[in-house]
Amino acid sequence: MRDQGKSEEEVMEGLQRMREKDLSYHRIFSSMCTPPHPIALLAHERFQETNLGDPGLFPGSAELEAEAVRMMAELLGYPDACGYLSTGGTESNIQAIRAARNAHSFRDGNIVVPKSAHFSFDKIGDLLSIEIRKADLDDDLKADLASVESLIDDKTVSLVGIAGTTEFGQVDPIGEMGEIALDSGIHLHVDAAFGGFVLPFLEGEWRWDFTVEAVTSITIDPHKMGMATIPGGGLLFRRPEDLERLAAYAPYLTVARPKALTGTRSGAAAAAIWAVMNHLGREGFKKVIDRCMDLSRRMVAGAREIGVEPAIEPVMNVVTLRMDDPEGVRADLLERRWRVSTTRCPKALRLILMPHSTAESVDLFLEDLRDVLKRRG
Amino acid sequence: MRDQGKSEEEVMEGLQRMREKDLSYHRIFSSMCTPPHPIALLAHERFQETNLGDPGLFPGSAELEAEAVRMMAELLGYPDACGYLSTGGTESNIQAIRAARNAHSFRDGNIVVPKSAHFSFDKIGDLLSIEIRKADLDDDLKADLASVESLIDDKTVSLVGIAGTTEFGQVDPIGEMGEIALDSGIHLHVDAAFGGFVLPFLEGEWRWDFTVEAVTSITIDPHKMGMATIPGGGLLFRRPEDLERLAAYAPYLTVARPKALTGTRSGAAAAAIWAVMNHLGREGFKKVIDRCMDLSRRMVAGAREIGVEPAIEPVMNVVTLRMDDPEGVRADLLERRWRVSTTRCPKALRLILMPHSTAESVDLFLEDLRDVLKRRG
Repeated sequence: MRDQGKSEEEVMEGLQRMREKDLSYHRIFSSMCTPPHPIALLAHERFQETNLGDPGLFPGSAELEAEAVRMMAELLGYPDACGYLSTGGTESNIQAIRAARNAHSFRDGNIVVPKSAHFSFDKIGDLLSIEIRKADLDDDLKADLASVESLIDDKTVSLVGIAGTTEFGQVDPIGEMGEIALDSGIHLHVDAAFGGFVLPFLEGEWRWDFTVEAVTSITIDPHKMGMATIPGGGLLFRRPEDLERLAAYAPYLTVARPKALTGTRSGAAAAAIWAVMNHLGREGFKKVIDRCMDLSRRMVAGAREIGVEPAIEPVMNVVTLRMDDPEGVRADLLERRWRVSTTRCPKALRLILMPHSTAESVDLFLEDLRDVLKRRG
Repeated sequence: MRDQGKSEEEVMEGLQRMREKDLSYHRIFSSMCTPPHPIALLAHERFQETNLGDPGLFPGSAELEAEAVRMMAELLGYPDACGYLSTGGTESNIQAIRAARNAHSFRDGNIVVPKSAHFSFDKIGDLLSIEIRKADLDDDLKADLASVESLIDDKTVSLVGIAGTTEFGQVDPIGEMGEIALDSGIHLHVDAAFGGFVLPFLEGEWRWDFTVEAVTSITIDPHKMGMATIPGGGLLFRRPEDLERLAAYAPYLTVARPKALTGTRSGAAAAAIWAVMNHLGREGFKKVIDRCMDLSRRMVAGAREIGVEPAIEPVMNVVTLRMDDPEGVRADLLERRWRVSTTRCPKALRLILMPHSTAESVDLFLEDLRDVLKRRG
């Protein structure tokens, strides 16, 4: 740090230069985040200085958090669910697994996750010193139930099902996994970081949320498809006693038993979540999701026109396209300033159609994809 | 969530009603947070949509993070230190202890912290399944070196020293703890969540940062005395290999080996930290700290005038006042809309003089304190 400060103008110019190096979301198909909804920005700004870690000082912010949790509980099929707003999917998954682990007297347990689970589960294994057992996937890239069952033993503390896998946007057979979890007397955590704000608005008979009796906790990420601001995560538990397993004793604060992993917490992010959910309502969210699904179908149809097939028919707004050498195609597209990502197994090009995506960007992208594939022969 | 959304006006009115329930910082002496510096608010707003978890999409934001880390490394006495911006002190402490634990082949280790350590170390013990051994304090409320030494055994992976204890603002004898750590061949982590932006600007011969050779990592919290926005934390390591012990493999993102505990991370908070440090410089920070220390001395002098003595002479901008029944006094002050907290051992009233504090608020508070004490007899 320099001795002398710079003027406000100089600092803001410096920030602007850096900001111009960042990409705009316009040509990004690789991110599960999206620019916050305008009302999220307004709400965030108004609550910028508030701290959910000290609710006695900020009872209004704390009420927004409680209401946001209640709205998410309703959305997830169990209005009595309890929980809190986390920093995002990783914290929510850490805490859900920690609660499951703490429900047992031993500490050298394991959890069974599908191979499609987010990479942060490996981090969770290291952090909590818990073994992460990975179940095979079936042909539809859902958790294979026989494989899940074969990995459970006396030290298994939780199953994990994914509602909207990071790579393919697939939904695990949570209903059937619930039967296995009930039989084994263990937790079933659902990672719906991406799908939590998508699946409730899709047609179709999904069984993935608290309406599945065995589901003990759900991760949902407002800062992904919830169009809220970062850090905007959510963690919900069916039973208060599981939330209570995370409680710490906090002598100097105005909260007796905080449950979050972090101490000081953004009231601004809570306000943003509350604002988006209240402003859009279910109807507003459905419009956003319908539009993302229309764009996903447009992407698949356009890809088929140039001879490219999806790895699976899109379940939600994640499109994966089978092709030779998707990494090479990704690099060629990067030269044309498109940001896409790839999947590992099966190998495919991966595109997420987010609220910031447009029919125009899909069509422009498809033109470039056609050209790239033609040049590669 | 309702089916129909509410208008922007309705939502903003709802937010405003909640915001009015929150306290303004004006009469708060109980918080280690403070309203962000105006330039932090401007910076935060401009980077609201950026995600440090995906630095290939946001290289400008990533550069701000790298520069903020470098500035903090300089501030902490070792410009080559490496690290990242965390969500705050708890995450930084978790990760520092995780790195220390992961440096060993066993997992059932322990760490030795002073009894004055922040309550979140108990949470860390639970999370990492590591034993937290608590050393006694000496008469100055610093870690007692003999007690620290007596708690170390073959399974001790780290000592922890506090530079600015939460309750008393005291600084542990980090230099001497460093000798013990070197002798034992273990890590020495310094929790300077509060003191990191205070101690560098005080007169006096503190030895607490990376200039103490044995110090392996430091927690510093820009969203406390750094006047940045939430979530603004920092974690610095002396050795890259310790940071590397936190690395995860991230297949779908534009970062190969992310080190943070969380995935999606606020670029806005990074921009705010960068902006405050650049705008104030060391001279600007020194002015802020000088003012907080002046207010602390004013508080102590005023307390003495009404017959109340501090528990310790304030080392930094934390004032603790000895009295009978501080909890009762706290409750009486609450009726007069003052927010203060208390300490446990020794029992005292605890006041933090933050950048939002003023001479006027100190004087008004002292009048009320005098009156409260008189009425209680």
